[in-house]
Amino acid sequence: MRSHGQAAWELLLPAVAAPARRRGRALQEALREAVRSGRLAAGTRLPSTRALAADLGVSRGLVTEAYEQLTAEGYLRSDRGAGTWVGDAARGRLGGTPARGAVQDPGGGTRAEGALAALAPGPGTGTGTGTGTGTHAREAVVRDPAPGTHARRAGAPAVRVDFRPGTPDLSLFPRAAWSAAQRAVLARLPHPALGYPDPRGLPELRLALAGMLTRRRGVVADPERLVVCSGVAQASTLLGYVLRARGLDAVGVEDPGSPEHGRLFASTGLDTVWLPIDEEGLRPEPLAASGVRAVVVTPSHQFPSGISWSAERRAALLDWARAVDGHVLEDDYDGDFRYDRAPVGALQGLDPERVVYAGSVSKSLAPGLRLGWMLVPKKLLAEVVERKRTMDLGNPVLDQAVLAEFVTRGAYDRQLRRCQRAYRERRDALLSALAEHLPGTAVSGIAAGLHVIARVPGRYGPPERFLARSAEAGVALRPLEEYGTARPGDGEVRLVIGYAHLAPPVLTAGIRRVAEAVGRG
Amino acid sequence: MRSHGQAAWELLLPAVAAPARRRGRALQEALREAVRSGRLAAGTRLPSTRALAADLGVSRGLVTEAYEQLTAEGYLRSDRGAGTWVGDAARGRLGGTPARGAVQDPGGGTRAEGALAALAPGPGTGTGTGTGTGTHAREAVVRDPAPGTHARRAGAPAVRVDFRPGTPDLSLFPRAAWSAAQRAVLARLPHPALGYPDPRGLPELRLALAGMLTRRRGVVADPERLVVCSGVAQASTLLGYVLRARGLDAVGVEDPGSPEHGRLFASTGLDTVWLPIDEEGLRPEPLAASGVRAVVVTPSHQFPSGISWSAERRAALLDWARAVDGHVLEDDYDGDFRYDRAPVGALQGLDPERVVYAGSVSKSLAPGLRLGWMLVPKKLLAEVVERKRTMDLGNPVLDQAVLAEFVTRGAYDRQLRRCQRAYRERRDALLSALAEHLPGTAVSGIAAGLHVIARVPGRYGPPERFLARSAEAGVALRPLEEYGTARPGDGEVRLVIGYAHLAPPVLTAGIRRVAEAVGRG
Repeated sequence: MRSHGQAAWELLLPAVAAPARRRGRALQEALREAVRSGRLAAGTRLPSTRALAADLGVSRGLVTEAYEQLTAEGYLRSDRGAGTWVGDAARGRLGGTPARGAVQDPGGGTRAEGALAALAPGPGTGTGTGTGTGTHAREAVVRDPAPGTHARRAGAPAVRVDFRPGTPDLSLFPRAAWSAAQRAVLARLPHPALGYPDPRGLPELRLALAGMLTRRRGVVADPERLVVCSGVAQASTLLGYVLRARGLDAVGVEDPGSPEHGRLFASTGLDTVWLPIDEEGLRPEPLAASGVRAVVVTPSHQFPSGISWSAERRAALLDWARAVDGHVLEDDYDGDFRYDRAPVGALQGLDPERVVYAGSVSKSLAPGLRLGWMLVPKKLLAEVVERKRTMDLGNPVLDQAVLAEFVTRGAYDRQLRRCQRAYRERRDALLSALAEHLPGTAVSGIAAGLHVIARVPGRYGPPERFLARSAEAGVALRPLEEYGTARPGDGEVRLVIGYAHLAPPVLTAGIRRVAEAVGRG
Repeated sequence: MRSHGQAAWELLLPAVAAPARRRGRALQEALREAVRSGRLAAGTRLPSTRALAADLGVSRGLVTEAYEQLTAEGYLRSDRGAGTWVGDAARGRLGGTPARGAVQDPGGGTRAEGALAALAPGPGTGTGTGTGTGTHAREAVVRDPAPGTHARRAGAPAVRVDFRPGTPDLSLFPRAAWSAAQRAVLARLPHPALGYPDPRGLPELRLALAGMLTRRRGVVADPERLVVCSGVAQASTLLGYVLRARGLDAVGVEDPGSPEHGRLFASTGLDTVWLPIDEEGLRPEPLAASGVRAVVVTPSHQFPSGISWSAERRAALLDWARAVDGHVLEDDYDGDFRYDRAPVGALQGLDPERVVYAGSVSKSLAPGLRLGWMLVPKKLLAEVVERKRTMDLGNPVLDQAVLAEFVTRGAYDRQLRRCQRAYRERRDALLSALAEHLPGTAVSGIAAGLHVIARVPGRYGPPERFLARSAEAGVALRPLEEYGTARPGDGEVRLVIGYAHLAPPVLTAGIRRVAEAVGRG
């Protein structure tokens, strides 16, 4: 190893000692962790990509990619041509836990994850093998606010093609593998595991999820802060009750956003305040003026607009949260179903003491499993766990054990890759069909997730007529206006189109059917 | 068929046409239903057992048994030597549903259950085959208020024998059968069943449970009023939130009783008021004076005292509920683990519009499944279902489908018989061990359930010393005083002893160890 002057960069060396195929990811994790831990202080100017690449002995492209990724996530800031600095968004320290990024074994031990290994004190340390770091493409964490439940409302005419968003392709559920894992679990689970559960969830599942989420989503995941719950819906309700008991009376929600968030919080006694989203994320001024001290957001892939929040807006949201002593619920409903690049890491990684992170298997496996997770700031943890206990004493044990088996043995990663291939293909099919049958339609949002926003030109008819004709033709469509306070604009038809549950020929036939029904404009 | 004067008795004829082995049960169900429906009006004097037996052409013992059973349940009243009348406790009509006792098929159809068939209008009707009536001995509906969770608190000395109640024998969980049923379910379940669930539960499970509960527990079970939930704990929380939203601020609980009820209601914003239990059940005067308008009770096998409420107290409770426009939560935690006779039918059967009935598989299968049910009065139904929806969107689907398979194919009945055999044997072993090693100890309560109340004579030492010595010897015991407001009495040691989770040799060794530790008195 070569010696050089900046100790912080030296800490990156073990990371780039990883095998070539995982070197890029390891470098990103080590940098992220260095920022979180304060080893790279806010305002520190980073070396040029060329200089750091030379120092570390890696390709310049790897360093450029790492800077870009961490800038997108809000850990770094850059100015075109003027260099890259460490930002001040990250507050990664877990109060009271021994090591950031360390995965606490509920059995008492601590096992080193990749990022921790990379930053273990002292140069040349080789304690970490990097086994926790990602060898897989990032794919999916999932969602279940109830857009999915809308899809089951009976419409008046028979629905032949249902483009309403919220449902994954249920035929992708790995029935044989699930059944086999269940058999294996029932053969090995000790009897006491069938008793009254730990309300936080099965220890082996919390450990497996913490590793998986650290690797895939860039979160700070301590299994002791992870609570297994019945999906993002229950995470919202649990947090709602806790915040209500702490005296809050309202929560901010994204506009446009999922109306389900508002319904869930209302059940806990909290009003919701719509807060406007623009093309970068939540606008800071209305947020500051709203007076709320908690918000629920979807920064990785905003629902339904489809944008990914900018680094500035991520940082601004956390600044706000710190200023008002507030909290953020990050609904990471489809956080790594991204098709064009590695997904942006979760907001929670920037400040695990302000952000409650929630996800589920509803998009990757099945909503019917009612199985999800939340990462909870230390000061809210006991209250969330006690709410979970009085709500249901804890999630059912067998599905938890099966999911732990799935995650641990790589079957969950395989399932995510399978879903991602299917959904990417369907997104492409939808875009082709729109281009062919409804030319002029603009699709916005990043290449990610299970839905798109489509803006159909006004020449296809006013929105009311467009939707009515489509419905008569047996095609269920949901206009963007149902997701917030926006009113129909300049005559164009704005649609939230879910594509994940529809095979490509069905997608194509559905769009063709719409085009025939509304006329060629 | 012979003709006779009283049409109501004629309605019993189809029931007694059942095969001999199920004739007694069919007669009881038909009589119960006749009272519920008003066909046998309150105050009607019943024929003598001899006369009715002759009229129906059945043995007199069958009629006597039916009268006794229904008297114990509160449907009939009798006066020694002076005859038997129809009581006024029952209000069995389900508002707005077409037929009492009819099991509504969520698919739209109605299938006749035994009791309905027996009372179908017109003499000699043969529409019912009686397939819904019980061919199995009554065994179990189960429980999970968290006495079970206490059992996991770490005691200071190592616990070798843990007599604290609340946990069933987890080794009795039918792993192979569950695994096979899961495989069968995954092979046949249609894809949409894996989507966002019906918050009330899987229709096939609600149908199966309604039939099972009608047959085993004498409840009025309309699948449309049945809500699948995460056990009795969640049933309590759901009802608590609903009652709180309706303006209630307190719920009455039995004293002695499970402290968990109070904790669950407290989480919903409701205070609890202890209401004294005597040897017949809840005392009416303190109840009336308390000002509460809701109570939670365990009338089939009062927890922890072990009594079965008298018919008079059942009727008095319902009279109170009607007078104050109140509600009763019936926690049927171990309602048909009865070892000496058929269990007393559930209170809910007497007035399904006042009583919320709740049970679970926690004692019959495993608490870790977090799977139970509640039968909800019509006017509370929509509110309970909406609370269930916002709490978790509904129970996980796969375990529900497996339980439906279990109930439908008779595996659940087999499991109940298996548990009942084991628990009865353990109860006998415990009683023998107490008689041998702590002679003079009195055991109270009916021969039922998973625990007993033991009163150890004062000569074995004052309670504090007795418990301390036992703990030092590695035996965990729970005194009755922990379950209510009662203070230790005249020096005797009052214990709530759970025996279901301990094999007979362990039970015996545990009691012997206590005896050795405390001395022979």
